[in-house]
Amino acid sequence: MGNPTDKLFENRYFLTPAECNPQGRMPITLLINRLIEVATLHANAIGIGYGTLVGRHETWVLSRVAVEMSRYPAVNDHYTIRTWISSINRLFSERDFEILDTQGTPIGYARTVWAVLNTDTRQGADISHMEWVADLIPADKVCPVDKPSRPRPVTGYAAHPYRFTYCDIDVNRHVNSSRYIELLLNQWSLSFHDEFRLTRFEIAYMREAHYNEEVEVRLQHLDNGVVRAELAHGDAPLCRALLSFSAR
Amino acid sequence: MGNPTDKLFENRYFLTPAECNPQGRMPITLLINRLIEVATLHANAIGIGYGTLVGRHETWVLSRVAVEMSRYPAVNDHYTIRTWISSINRLFSERDFEILDTQGTPIGYARTVWAVLNTDTRQGADISHMEWVADLIPADKVCPVDKPSRPRPVTGYAAHPYRFTYCDIDVNRHVNSSRYIELLLNQWSLSFHDEFRLTRFEIAYMREAHYNEEVEVRLQHLDNGVVRAELAHGDAPLCRALLSFSAR
Repeated sequence: MGNPTDKLFENRYFLTPAECNPQGRMPITLLINRLIEVATLHANAIGIGYGTLVGRHETWVLSRVAVEMSRYPAVNDHYTIRTWISSINRLFSERDFEILDTQGTPIGYARTVWAVLNTDTRQGADISHMEWVADLIPADKVCPVDKPSRPRPVTGYAAHPYRFTYCDIDVNRHVNSSRYIELLLNQWSLSFHDEFRLTRFEIAYMREAHYNEEVEVRLQHLDNGVVRAELAHGDAPLCRALLSFSAR
Repeated sequence: MGNPTDKLFENRYFLTPAECNPQGRMPITLLINRLIEVATLHANAIGIGYGTLVGRHETWVLSRVAVEMSRYPAVNDHYTIRTWISSINRLFSERDFEILDTQGTPIGYARTVWAVLNTDTRQGADISHMEWVADLIPADKVCPVDKPSRPRPVTGYAAHPYRFTYCDIDVNRHVNSSRYIELLLNQWSLSFHDEFRLTRFEIAYMREAHYNEEVEVRLQHLDNGVVRAELAHGDAPLCRALLSFSAR
């Protein structure tokens, strides 16, 4: 298990018009879905994926993400997502990513933290049996952006209510995590998004949400265009996020 | 232009878990997006597609759809969508579809009406110059479901307001037409959708909607589980639809 060629895994994509946001760019929701896809393909390729975990009634879950983009792929661009494992311990594995443009130039990076969930108990599982994948951590790959920070509660927030509807629910019978991010992005106007883009985005997924649950979108504006955000059902946070906008 | 092999065009797909609805089936929104995709590929292949129209400042727009499904593809199914032109006149072209399961057995049909829009004037264009494609209408293909009916206004309706947000807007800077359908489906609960499925769905697209526009979803329950629906901005209908539900 695990030979040197498995250390890096990459997949190439094409950005179709139907996938683009109103600014003709790749939306952050699609980018995070692609990170999950590439991580899943790599995990399958090295033997720690779905096939290995399903018999143990376990599944990988994405716990935290930090993405930093200097440029987003534009409509009809090809782009590549490359990933490698950067750490593993008894409870978590970290995985880093580079996003490359058609010429192979890095246009962004992502750092992620994953846990394994027991699908019967819905509790985190011990992943010590996978610690051999530490051999697959590349010695020479550095991800030049900060890890996701510790998710902190918002304070002094403005709150916006939302109730989850049928089309927010996915095949797993809970709210699709892309909807969390869309709910956050929807707090800004089209003209704001025309003027500013997300240069850094962090999200920590904390709890699943269900059909017809009413939540609050809570936003706290910090300095320098940074916004701390939380989706919460009463006292229970579903996710916490940090959004940094810059002029386009 | 146009040889007999061009009369039928088909594309094969795989239904991923991420694409499925909570019932583990293909959502009607994805099905209609696939119809548009296959129609676009066929139009390009026979020389009446994007490449031909863009120089004339014109583009195909889907005007009306009727879909009738005896069974929807399930998670991890392969399926095929096959299309052919069924009529063309000075203003409209009709195009029919079969949806086939892995074994090639028909599991549904669709009938569509298309117009060409002048992208400068936003008015319908004369398509007489394409009337040669009448030679590509197959002599022996019959689509065994009714055409979309004339869209009629709803009366005695219950109205539900909705305001379009940032993530409803697509790269064309108007509300994505899939969102119209999602707004309709969201008027029913998860448990309703668990119990019933759409066996026939008709929609007529009448007007584009824009960011921050407030609309009403209007529903009128007819007999036999049939619902007439309309999305409207004041007096102006954006779309009119007819939904027929049956027990799963």
